[in-house]
Amino acid sequence: MAKEKYDFIIIGGGGTGLAAGMYAARLGLKTLILGYTHGSEFPIGGVITTTNIVENYPGFKKISGEDLAKKLEEHARDYELVTIKQELVESVRKSGKIFLLKTKKEEYESRTILFATGTKWKKLEVPGALDFENAGVNYCALCDGPLFKNKTVAIVGGSDSAAKDALVLGEHAKKVYVISRSTLHPEPINMERIKANKKIEVIEGNEVKEVEGDKVVTGVILDKHYKGQKELAVDGLFVAIGHIVLSELAEKLGVKVDKKKEIIINHKTSETNVPGVFAAGDVTDKPFKQLITGVADGCTAAYSAYEYISKEKIK
Amino acid sequence: MAKEKYDFIIIGGGGTGLAAGMYAARLGLKTLILGYTHGSEFPIGGVITTTNIVENYPGFKKISGEDLAKKLEEHARDYELVTIKQELVESVRKSGKIFLLKTKKEEYESRTILFATGTKWKKLEVPGALDFENAGVNYCALCDGPLFKNKTVAIVGGSDSAAKDALVLGEHAKKVYVISRSTLHPEPINMERIKANKKIEVIEGNEVKEVEGDKVVTGVILDKHYKGQKELAVDGLFVAIGHIVLSELAEKLGVKVDKKKEIIINHKTSETNVPGVFAAGDVTDKPFKQLITGVADGCTAAYSAYEYISKEKIK
Repeated sequence: MAKEKYDFIIIGGGGTGLAAGMYAARLGLKTLILGYTHGSEFPIGGVITTTNIVENYPGFKKISGEDLAKKLEEHARDYELVTIKQELVESVRKSGKIFLLKTKKEEYESRTILFATGTKWKKLEVPGALDFENAGVNYCALCDGPLFKNKTVAIVGGSDSAAKDALVLGEHAKKVYVISRSTLHPEPINMERIKANKKIEVIEGNEVKEVEGDKVVTGVILDKHYKGQKELAVDGLFVAIGHIVLSELAEKLGVKVDKKKEIIINHKTSETNVPGVFAAGDVTDKPFKQLITGVADGCTAAYSAYEYISKEKIK
Repeated sequence: MAKEKYDFIIIGGGGTGLAAGMYAARLGLKTLILGYTHGSEFPIGGVITTTNIVENYPGFKKISGEDLAKKLEEHARDYELVTIKQELVESVRKSGKIFLLKTKKEEYESRTILFATGTKWKKLEVPGALDFENAGVNYCALCDGPLFKNKTVAIVGGSDSAAKDALVLGEHAKKVYVISRSTLHPEPINMERIKANKKIEVIEGNEVKEVEGDKVVTGVILDKHYKGQKELAVDGLFVAIGHIVLSELAEKLGVKVDKKKEIIINHKTSETNVPGVFAAGDVTDKPFKQLITGVADGCTAAYSAYEYISKEKIK
């Protein structure tokens, strides 16, 4: 079977990958976007498709995550040089200067690779949690916090991320419960901030056993009594029990990752340690992970790939 | 006169500054955007307002620069915490942990500062060049190159940037003249690329004396004869004779700049060497300067300012 050849193959069909594809095509690169990776089951458009309302992508005051994803997809599809396929990438290896990709269906060759594989949220596995996703159960405090202005919310998690999310929620909500299975263990600075914030109440050594609601969340049931009762009335529940970084394929290719399994990139260029391999978006060690930053880093990666290919052609 | 106090003052009202303002407000920061800086006379919206059609801001397949700028402005204005003023900033100094800004009209205090002051293009000062701006005379090959698909264009300039722009134009146009006053002097790698590209023809030791056209550019008049004539028929002219980086105010504050006068930032966080001072967009040493990257770095800067202020409040 003859392999299809590309200049730039993007693994990951989220906002980052779609924007990178659009930019690469503008630079004349024959580009393939492969939408699926192991562990991720998002449709084309990626994680943003799971967000109800996006208010923080500059240029769109208010748009549904699905509509924004569609706009990014249409933008990429507008270029003939871009092909988008929903195929699960099984392996990537380097042979000389060429990368060989195998999906469940086909094999491809490319001069450069972009990992835009993202992360997935660990889900809260209790009754009601999945049913009320986007109806009070959320995963991104920065994205969805402003929806809970002057409301009461709870956040589940004990990490530094959970603490930081609680602080972000405190900018909007009138009351924030932090529910941690063990003790809350953020960085000291964030612990102090939590203590200094009168809106935030920490409930340690307790768990959410069930999420209640009608059309939207109305409360949670705790495992143990807290202030004499097991029911806590809340308008929203944020889940911050961790991410799974989808960097396994990259790691197998020799790409360096940090302790969190995030791909270490040069933030000026989106390059990884492997020549010809770039990374952008949630899969990287960028501390501030938002759709807009992933999209921009995807564009930067496309430009870096274009520069890399131009150099290689001369050699 | 009592000084108005802010958490975050953004100097520069272009896309970068507007996006930073929106994000800062979402993080609860009282924010002021000051639109004018010395040397820049752009309206709110910045340099993008001078681009006819923007096709490379992910999410908008095709939009006028003016309309996109308006959307970014409306997005920022949607937040009560954001104030936008068109005042020329005359000085910024640090007093303890507080920054003191003086404009032509007023004085302000802020906990943090973002330089989003951008650059300005050096203009080609020959008859017709200003008249045909956006009607064939352009400054951004990456932005406007695709408008000249299968057309003939000329680019004026002898630097590495001019050479790189010529290569980008070569991805679209059928013919690219590079007109350099002295010899073309790009990085060796780009020189080789130029030589290897059959679409590109270099005219050295010559100058554009006039830009001709009717409603749009039809040609340029050269200073000296080239292949027996002084007139060169082109559909577009790109000007790449350099930028002026608007980093003077920052430098006076002790912010480090590189040889090009670009502000050196941590590309992960948009921090400068001065605590509490951030920079984003065209004024920084980011190699890939596009609206989308400036916008994203502006958002990152807002987040870093929020983090910085939270830490300072605890101390």
